[in-house]
Amino acid sequence: MIIVLKPGCTPEQVKDFTNTLTNEYSIKVNTWVGTQSTVLGLIGDTSAIDIDYISAQDFVESVKRVQEPYKKSNRKFHPDDTVITLPDGQKIGGGGLALIAGPCSVESKEQICDIARRVKAAGAQFLRGGAFKPRTSPYAFQGLKAEGLELLKEAKKETGLPIVTEIMSANHIDMFLENGVDIIQVGARNMQNFDLLKELGKVKTPILLKRGLSSTIEELLMSAEYILAGGNEQVILCERGIRTYETYTRNTLDISAIPILKKLSHLPVVVDPSHAGGIAWLVEPLALAAVAAGADGLIIEVHNNPAKALSDGAQSLTPDQFDKAAEHLRAAAKAFGRNVE
Amino acid sequence: MIIVLKPGCTPEQVKDFTNTLTNEYSIKVNTWVGTQSTVLGLIGDTSAIDIDYISAQDFVESVKRVQEPYKKSNRKFHPDDTVITLPDGQKIGGGGLALIAGPCSVESKEQICDIARRVKAAGAQFLRGGAFKPRTSPYAFQGLKAEGLELLKEAKKETGLPIVTEIMSANHIDMFLENGVDIIQVGARNMQNFDLLKELGKVKTPILLKRGLSSTIEELLMSAEYILAGGNEQVILCERGIRTYETYTRNTLDISAIPILKKLSHLPVVVDPSHAGGIAWLVEPLALAAVAAGADGLIIEVHNNPAKALSDGAQSLTPDQFDKAAEHLRAAAKAFGRNVE
Amino acid sequence: MIIVLKPGCTPEQVKDFTNTLTNEYSIKVNTWVGTQSTVLGLIGDTSAIDIDYISAQDFVESVKRVQEPYKKSNRKFHPDDTVITLPDGQKIGGGGLALIAGPCSVESKEQICDIARRVKAAGAQFLRGGAFKPRTSPYAFQGLKAEGLELLKEAKKETGLPIVTEIMSANHIDMFLENGVDIIQVGARNMQNFDLLKELGKVKTPILLKRGLSSTIEELLMSAEYILAGGNEQVILCERGIRTYETYTRNTLDISAIPILKKLSHLPVVVDPSHAGGIAWLVEPLALAAVAAGADGLIIEVHNNPAKALSDGAQSLTPDQFDKAAEHLRAAAKAFGRNVE
Amino acid sequence: MIIVLKPGCTPEQVKDFTNTLTNEYSIKVNTWVGTQSTVLGLIGDTSAIDIDYISAQDFVESVKRVQEPYKKSNRKFHPDDTVITLPDGQKIGGGGLALIAGPCSVESKEQICDIARRVKAAGAQFLRGGAFKPRTSPYAFQGLKAEGLELLKEAKKETGLPIVTEIMSANHIDMFLENGVDIIQVGARNMQNFDLLKELGKVKTPILLKRGLSSTIEELLMSAEYILAGGNEQVILCERGIRTYETYTRNTLDISAIPILKKLSHLPVVVDPSHAGGIAWLVEPLALAAVAAGADGLIIEVHNNPAKALSDGAQSLTPDQFDKAAEHLRAAAKAFGRNVE
Repeated sequence: MIIVLKPGCTPEQVKDFTNTLTNEYSIKVNTWVGTQSTVLGLIGDTSAIDIDYISAQDFVESVKRVQEPYKKSNRKFHPDDTVITLPDGQKIGGGGLALIAGPCSVESKEQICDIARRVKAAGAQFLRGGAFKPRTSPYAFQGLKAEGLELLKEAKKETGLPIVTEIMSANHIDMFLENGVDIIQVGARNMQNFDLLKELGKVKTPILLKRGLSSTIEELLMSAEYILAGGNEQVILCERGIRTYETYTRNTLDISAIPILKKLSHLPVVVDPSHAGGIAWLVEPLALAAVAAGADGLIIEVHNNPAKALSDGAQSLTPDQFDKAAEHLRAAAKAFGRNVE
Repeated sequence: MIIVLKPGCTPEQVKDFTNTLTNEYSIKVNTWVGTQSTVLGLIGDTSAIDIDYISAQDFVESVKRVQEPYKKSNRKFHPDDTVITLPDGQKIGGGGLALIAGPCSVESKEQICDIARRVKAAGAQFLRGGAFKPRTSPYAFQGLKAEGLELLKEAKKETGLPIVTEIMSANHIDMFLENGVDIIQVGARNMQNFDLLKELGKVKTPILLKRGLSSTIEELLMSAEYILAGGNEQVILCERGIRTYETYTRNTLDISAIPILKKLSHLPVVVDPSHAGGIAWLVEPLALAAVAAGADGLIIEVHNNPAKALSDGAQSLTPDQFDKAAEHLRAAAKAFGRNVE
Repeated sequence: MIIVLKPGCTPEQVKDFTNTLTNEYSIKVNTWVGTQSTVLGLIGDTSAIDIDYISAQDFVESVKRVQEPYKKSNRKFHPDDTVITLPDGQKIGGGGLALIAGPCSVESKEQICDIARRVKAAGAQFLRGGAFKPRTSPYAFQGLKAEGLELLKEAKKETGLPIVTEIMSANHIDMFLENGVDIIQVGARNMQNFDLLKELGKVKTPILLKRGLSSTIEELLMSAEYILAGGNEQVILCERGIRTYETYTRNTLDISAIPILKKLSHLPVVVDPSHAGGIAWLVEPLALAAVAAGADGLIIEVHNNPAKALSDGAQSLTPDQFDKAAEHLRAAAKAFGRNVE
Repeated sequence: MIIVLKPGCTPEQVKDFTNTLTNEYSIKVNTWVGTQSTVLGLIGDTSAIDIDYISAQDFVESVKRVQEPYKKSNRKFHPDDTVITLPDGQKIGGGGLALIAGPCSVESKEQICDIARRVKAAGAQFLRGGAFKPRTSPYAFQGLKAEGLELLKEAKKETGLPIVTEIMSANHIDMFLENGVDIIQVGARNMQNFDLLKELGKVKTPILLKRGLSSTIEELLMSAEYILAGGNEQVILCERGIRTYETYTRNTLDISAIPILKKLSHLPVVVDPSHAGGIAWLVEPLALAAVAAGADGLIIEVHNNPAKALSDGAQSLTPDQFDKAAEHLRAAAKAFGRNVE
């Protein structure tokens, strides 16, 4: 951390401040006295130092972090890729291409089982489906809740596909575990629901953490850090589009986030092209681009009858469309040297 | 709701779709057949209709809401201003100017009581102070939690100032009520934590609902709708700056949101100039602008020693600075015809 | 300028780089060697140093400007406010409140003269009106061009109001000067049309420089610097809303930009509430907020018949609405201690 | 165009307004009278109708375009892909992969010729190089200007690579043509410099039109429309990243824009991964993603010595890095069925 002090700062102020810093944190402070201003360089683990605290000092001109504030999610301290491996062998990370597919919402046993069979046949290794749905309007369909989890369990029994589903409250964690949810998804709106993240740090189930609508890459990694710091080392990062001024798409897929997250962190990165674009015909080109940019997997909305979907119909693929998309995605993944059959 | 159908849409499709709509929702559908395309006009309460569901139909070109999707927060159905009145008579809304002031975090009894006395003397009618703190980093100070609520209660006992403090989990609602929290704040990061909103809809305590970092005005009103629909009619809306590309300020205060929220909704609107700008010297000009634009109140961070603040020091006013700001704000409010002593 | 070098950087690299910097620029370099990395502090005028050039060095970890890159527009080197004074005494800056009003486009002699009389009667000291119009569509009305300038001259002759009108090409500068344009406006879309800025640096006419749709405050000051560096010291900065994700308003008025520009620069700041919000009923509250935040003036669209306006009708005030707005604005300005009759 | 009128609108107002519309524009108006409000449907060429004009009517509730406002760039009226073919046979569009490479700025004969030889050897078919440079700071290197064009001509003579270079003023068009510039680039900052676009509509040289920093996809197509409407049908669209809140990258590459532009328009689309990310190591993954998403070409900054580059060094590839990137890009293009040797 580099701190530039204001021109008029006295030697006593510098000394006092330096003492405070070394007493409060386990760091060393190097001082560089220039003709116009003094610069302090903080050496050691500065991740616990609040930048606001430094800026609040009257005599501080500006402050700049040199080290990243995240540790457990930082590739510098964990050079090898984290690979999420489920009990039945399905993997996210490690050079393959994970395909997570299924409807936005679980609507009925028939619906979820039908879709599960179809996406499995098309090559998906994981089934997604929402039981608890975060909806902008209190008057919109809120998901089948506990019943939805039951139906997902049925679909898993039928197809063997592990289940990915979203959690909206820490109070539901036990219910998720009892129903054998394989990967717990934290939605974009809850990326900074820190109490939920802390509780998810205490379980062993992998967490798929979606980037917030307007969260920076660093904030996403800091939210992952909450889970990792709690003891759960199985976190999957998910880029799902950010909010910008462009209105043609629902969100703007930040394709750059993929190689950046892979560089800064060892955690696997999946991409949600359905929510990013919000338009069914955009899903395939965005998914292909994500593979080209290095994504470890994709999470794609598929519905047996998008026009009757209770939510997100406009961005869902039909099973037939998903068949083709999956074929093209596997071909692309092979061309990029991925370990795909 | 106006639905434009695609040119090739058949009369049968139109008829089927119209039947589906009238069977599922309590609405009427008017059909206008043009030479090139057909337009449907939906009359009645369309707030339960999911725009995604409509867009997902193959034969739908585009769809446009005419009615706002929020009802209980809508001024059209509730023309009179909602005024929040606490048991001891403090008001938010109704033509005055509510001043809510205090530290970002409660740090000690001495700190919170000192600040409470000072802001009261300067004219604040409410004390703010964080006990549970949402922090980007798991390694940063997370607040004194339950102890913080105790200390706020002490400060209230000493000064009579009602307490405004942030909740981060529905599991803490009982603790908040037992400690006599007067106004429960929902932070920007939890504006779409719908499970929390639903639980807050069940209590009688006023809720101060902050706008999310990148939430639209309509989304803010939809989140208020969750609380109102649950039965809690005391909601205060808070504009606290939105995330944009500009980096000079922490956020960009959306000053337009004030008159717009006042026009669209009957709920009172307060502004947080401390988080909006993130810079102490910007607080006063932004607060004055908010009053000029029609804000019902302000929530301002004040710290007895910003340089020692455990959080948000850079944007906190000292008590002396707050004295002057409050004086200027009252003068401005009077000039704008507000009911201020 | 503070440059953090990468950990592995050798003493030779540091020496070579330091030599290059001191040879190419008139600066001194201070070196601080830490246990893990080396930091260089550049003292002197670093405004000519390209940050990209520094970042491109293999051994540079990061670089941070301490000094602002603008000089002539910088309040540090020019502490006193610049006040623009026209030959007939109208002022922008200096503690009053400049009101610039008129139609988006000049449409006819009758229209511009009518509006000029009305806005003058209401207290405006300047007449705005577009002769050359930047339109998103090539099929939209592009302004009356040379004829529009003629008509503005007529309106000035009748009312004595100095003229503010937009230039879109350096080739028109002579025409503007010959027609006695008093203040030349550079529109948001041309804020970084550097060739135009350079040419405007050569004239003596004041320039009203609008902030680009997504320009930072620093970029606005750098564009002003182009004009000032060319020799024209009469620049007026104009905040007119920035592009964000919020769609309720045409743009988002960045109210914070007003106090920030006033602090960083000595140049006067006017605000355009008409383009910022894009909605007629928002103009007055936004204008009042701008005055409260310290704006030196306002530029407001007024049309005698908004429903027949060839452009921007939806955001134009009628002369009657402007009468009231001007009255309220003057009252507010007085309340804030401005020098207004 | 669908116009929703306000509930209280009288039959006379509807009639008058309908008459005005049919008299002024060559359209038909269909009227649908509902129980609560009346809707007008405008049939015919509505591209000349200003949406602001409609919104400005007192009795208009809201208005919605159904037809796109661009015509000549619209795929609906021009289903076949436009392919740009230069006299020596190089193509942009038509199923291949155009590689445009070269330095940000032309700096010397040796530099530009060296780089030209290297990028040609690596497979680039076009040479880019800036002679006139738009720089945020008036104190930064502004390009070699006319001399730069001369040097580009030399490099073309040596290598046969056609030249792509940026224009900043309509006054330079003759100089560009005399120097044999093959493709004239309009930079992001001039995307809405409509006077420049109009002049470029009069020449026969292909125009590479970069998307503005915060321009929508529709605005980009409207700017292309200015050139096409002027008579120049050879326009290449360029996605180069948009401005968002994310600061890790210089801009955010809007990867979705590629398939969307290809769907809405017949014009070829190239991508600039160098400016989008602003970081050399991001260029290749972003370029691969662009190919996967359907881009017709790439424009990539290459410098023989990035650390000495007078501009944009941080995002330039070395010739060796470009060799590898070009190889990977060609392999990817083949895998996606492109016509690449």
